Amino acid sequence: MRHPPQIAELIDRLAGLPGLGRKSATRLALHILKKPEDEVLALARALRAVKEEIRFCSVCHDYTDSDPCARCRDPRRDHRSVCVVESPADLMVVEASGLYRGLYHVLGGVLNPLLGIGPDDLNIDTLMKRLDPPETEGEAVRELILATGSSPEAEATCSHILDKLKGRPLQITRLARGLPLGMDLEYVDASTLKRALEDRRPAR
Amino acid sequence: MRHPPQIAELIDRLAGLPGLGRKSATRLALHILKKPEDEVLALARALRAVKEEIRFCSVCHDYTDSDPCARCRDPRRDHRSVCVVESPADLMVVEASGLYRGLYHVLGGVLNPLLGIGPDDLNIDTLMKRLDPPETEGEAVRELILATGSSPEAEATCSHILDKLKGRPLQITRLARGLPLGMDLEYVDASTLKRALEDRRPAR
Repeated sequence: MRHPPQIAELIDRLAGLPGLGRKSATRLALHILKKPEDEVLALARALRAVKEEIRFCSVCHDYTDSDPCARCRDPRRDHRSVCVVESPADLMVVEASGLYRGLYHVLGGVLNPLLGIGPDDLNIDTLMKRLDPPETEGEAVRELILATGSSPEAEATCSHILDKLKGRPLQITRLARGLPLGMDLEYVDASTLKRALEDRRPAR
Repeated sequence: MRHPPQIAELIDRLAGLPGLGRKSATRLALHILKKPEDEVLALARALRAVKEEIRFCSVCHDYTDSDPCARCRDPRRDHRSVCVVESPADLMVVEASGLYRGLYHVLGGVLNPLLGIGPDDLNIDTLMKRLDPPETEGEAVRELILATGSSPEAEATCSHILDKLKGRPLQITRLARGLPLGMDLEYVDASTLKRALEDRRPAR
């Protein structure tokens, strides 16, 4: 005897979410059945709303409900600085640190020839346009922070962007590479150790 | 800078589900944003459907989209046997075992004086009515299996039901208590060991 089709459908749909196997999807479905109706309908509405109302900002390519997004329009942020990240999730991580008050540019991935992801698949053209001197009002971008990860694909993406930026009067920086804090030396992989040695800093 | 309100609302709603903290709710929301629109809308519809179309069966009190539920109406099942469980989740466990082909009765909880849950809060009255001899057609219930858990509250609930069943010509059984399979004796708690000793069986 199977569940009523509505419950089976909910379990199937929940099992399609990441990190949820059939067993936890079933448990979650039973929990949802016990939840007050208004809470469940609110979740259903929230799911619908993100799909129907959330788009990409045409400037920074982060998720937004208005274009340009509220961040790109915020006069309190430093419009002379752009932080380049791979994804909206990475943007959130930098933003949550509270250490950066400039703007962002979401690449939407990294170069990956094996997966057929080339420069045209990333938001690189719009980055170059943002870095052009403004035609009318607005301040020119002076600083670019390449805040990508440290995978080989991310490194290749950075190299590609750096190539395209040659000759532009920009201060370009990248996130430091080295030992993560709290790490014992004996557990560090050889590539990280090599980079930490090469980039060693005066100890004062 | 906060997320667009639609994303913040989705994260809030997801964080209200069991086993999801704010961090995993945020990760899940970002995953949902990347998913194809039709899949997300299907999940939203499935959530709405379980709340709007699923009710409790008036006979067995399991979730159903028709009343009585398909299981209670199924002539291929043994209508002379009723398995009493605490919850629809427990019903699913017994049903998934494939070892039982009778009907069920969901109590909807166990007696718990501390939480103010008394006999009137459980589906005990309807159980008694089911056990009355049928007035017109249909077979009388002959066997009752008390398949509750082994918490003190579940034991008290079983005692209460057994009291009410006194004098009825029914075969009443309970799930065996003892060592779970694959358990080393040194890890068994004292109460389980006591019960396993008391209920010891001929080794043949």
